[in-house]
Amino acid sequence: MGSRTNGVAGGSSSGPVDKGADFANYFCTYGFLYHQKEMLSDRVRMDAYYNAVFKNKHHFQGKTVLDVGTGSGILAIWSAQAGARKVYAVEATKMSEHARTLVRANNLQDIVEVIEGSMEEIDLPEKVDVIISEWMGYFLLRESMFDSVICARDRWLKPTGVMYPSHARMWVAPIRSGLADQKKNDYEGAMDDWYGFLEDTKDYYGVDMSVLTKPFSEEQQKYYLQTSLWSNLHPNQVIGTAAVIKEIDCLTVSVNDILQVKSSFSSVINMVPTRFCGFAGWFDVHFRGRGEDPAQQEIELTTAPSPNNGTHWGQQVFFFHPPLHVDEETNLNVSFLMTRSKENHRLMEVEFDVKISKPSDKVLPPINKKFYIE
Amino acid sequence: MGSRTNGVAGGSSSGPVDKGADFANYFCTYGFLYHQKEMLSDRVRMDAYYNAVFKNKHHFQGKTVLDVGTGSGILAIWSAQAGARKVYAVEATKMSEHARTLVRANNLQDIVEVIEGSMEEIDLPEKVDVIISEWMGYFLLRESMFDSVICARDRWLKPTGVMYPSHARMWVAPIRSGLADQKKNDYEGAMDDWYGFLEDTKDYYGVDMSVLTKPFSEEQQKYYLQTSLWSNLHPNQVIGTAAVIKEIDCLTVSVNDILQVKSSFSSVINMVPTRFCGFAGWFDVHFRGRGEDPAQQEIELTTAPSPNNGTHWGQQVFFFHPPLHVDEETNLNVSFLMTRSKENHRLMEVEFDVKISKPSDKVLPPINKKFYIE
Repeated sequence: MGSRTNGVAGGSSSGPVDKGADFANYFCTYGFLYHQKEMLSDRVRMDAYYNAVFKNKHHFQGKTVLDVGTGSGILAIWSAQAGARKVYAVEATKMSEHARTLVRANNLQDIVEVIEGSMEEIDLPEKVDVIISEWMGYFLLRESMFDSVICARDRWLKPTGVMYPSHARMWVAPIRSGLADQKKNDYEGAMDDWYGFLEDTKDYYGVDMSVLTKPFSEEQQKYYLQTSLWSNLHPNQVIGTAAVIKEIDCLTVSVNDILQVKSSFSSVINMVPTRFCGFAGWFDVHFRGRGEDPAQQEIELTTAPSPNNGTHWGQQVFFFHPPLHVDEETNLNVSFLMTRSKENHRLMEVEFDVKISKPSDKVLPPINKKFYIE
Repeated sequence: MGSRTNGVAGGSSSGPVDKGADFANYFCTYGFLYHQKEMLSDRVRMDAYYNAVFKNKHHFQGKTVLDVGTGSGILAIWSAQAGARKVYAVEATKMSEHARTLVRANNLQDIVEVIEGSMEEIDLPEKVDVIISEWMGYFLLRESMFDSVICARDRWLKPTGVMYPSHARMWVAPIRSGLADQKKNDYEGAMDDWYGFLEDTKDYYGVDMSVLTKPFSEEQQKYYLQTSLWSNLHPNQVIGTAAVIKEIDCLTVSVNDILQVKSSFSSVINMVPTRFCGFAGWFDVHFRGRGEDPAQQEIELTTAPSPNNGTHWGQQVFFFHPPLHVDEETNLNVSFLMTRSKENHRLMEVEFDVKISKPSDKVLPPINKKFYIE
């Protein structure tokens, strides 16, 4: 589930998480029905999970299911409707009370048990056949909710159990977008305003604040130019080949495997002439079951740029300033590194290192830029 | 300082505050230079404090000063420029580092000592002659920062010491505003959308969510109709007499005195015919010194509706739905009660109880409405 809220305080990937801060920064949006409705109104998301369950009833009929982060209870309800014997629907926020109400209103209280608490703390009476969860954040891993799904799997999935979804991939592609110009203008406007402010503060109030220009401009650059943005791109904004930068088998991945995403890949800018504004990142997940117990119908949920099937996740865009004018097919050798923010393990830091080469042998300086996924 | 961020978690007025949550919900905005600049760009605010200090240098010359919540350090710097012997500038966020830089750049490091920490925890080497602070939130008490100023006063102000500001008042008046209609429309739009969502979820996904209509509508009502709004009103939107609902002597007030604001007052709607949309709340503060050591020039900072001298605080508006059409001079007997939210002591709950009487002896039903200051 993509959530737009973020915060500053929180735990690091290696230290304990301040629960109060984690709740204030992360969990609290999920306690609102309005936010649940936003996700329930995402037809692409809903169709994918609905089809994944109902076209694969063999995984559910007579089985036990755990829904990690049940929210309003929708996946738990579908699991029960698909024939599950018992469904444990775990939810950390007070939304669990609404899930319980919804389960009862749909007459499934004998099958679905809603449990309020975090996956790391609650106990179940038994191990389960299926773990179903909609845990994906922007660019897949923002929010780090998958840690809780891995914890659930390690604690509660039977050795023969199936993960829904079973696989996930992260993608990156070079793009063009007018949003880059907007942000550049916003930044320049903020700096123009700052210089006027400096003059006024000196003239009227006798205080020279020019020593703060550097930190102010760094703060504004981070905010306008170095923070990834949400965008719902059209495929014609993707100007070159997309590359898979991470593949996850949800049955076997560990938290350690996802603490960082490191990838070297090539991409060819082939839609020329164009402006190379930066990169977009997105993900897809797959419902394939497991080798010994596969899906009858494999389902894919993709958040790739699409003319009609955009999702609430959009894509995350990372802009270079200034954009590069590209006149001929151009090769990019990209090193990508994403790590968790020290201040808040649910937020990310990203680094792109791009070497650009053209057929005409023109050598361009490499690009190295850091970004924040807030 | 008025800050638009708010959160959900936090301490109650009687229980301990979860520091991590308090930081995530409250303190974090103040760590941004952009936010400090917003407050420093408020000319009415800046003029008032500047004049309060420089037209009352006798309070500062050769004296010791404590600036509670120094932010960028501006009040501490002015205190030093006005002749203070020593200024302690206390700031809970990392903004303290910028304050230290600013002090040095203005060559005042021998006078101004910036201390990072909360007023409740840090120690000073001596008591002070003056406590200066810009602690006011929306409608004066939102953010409950004044608690920290009272704590500072009880710990560090000499028996002969002076508070800057010395007094504060809260005001309420009946108003008209187009914003009320906007919010009503927003709410109705959200409910229309909800009913469409219910149909789709039932038709496409086989789940009846109608049992959630009541909690959803309550959530949306709270958000659109029962939460006070920021507005910068024009005086011609004030349709009746304004009343003082709280008077504070900053030298003697206790935290207990401000845990709740309770007032019964009358107001006459005299700008008729009009639409009585609800009430606005605002505040003023005064720099009068103390009885035995008064200001040479008393300064007032008011946030009342003004055509040209609006502040970043604006006013807080509380709308009744639907508005009342008022054709003749009408008397309002109002009972007002404001208390701190149990979930977060920095946020407020407000109750208006309004008895309406007209000269024509028409008796209208009383209005009783609860609001949230988030």
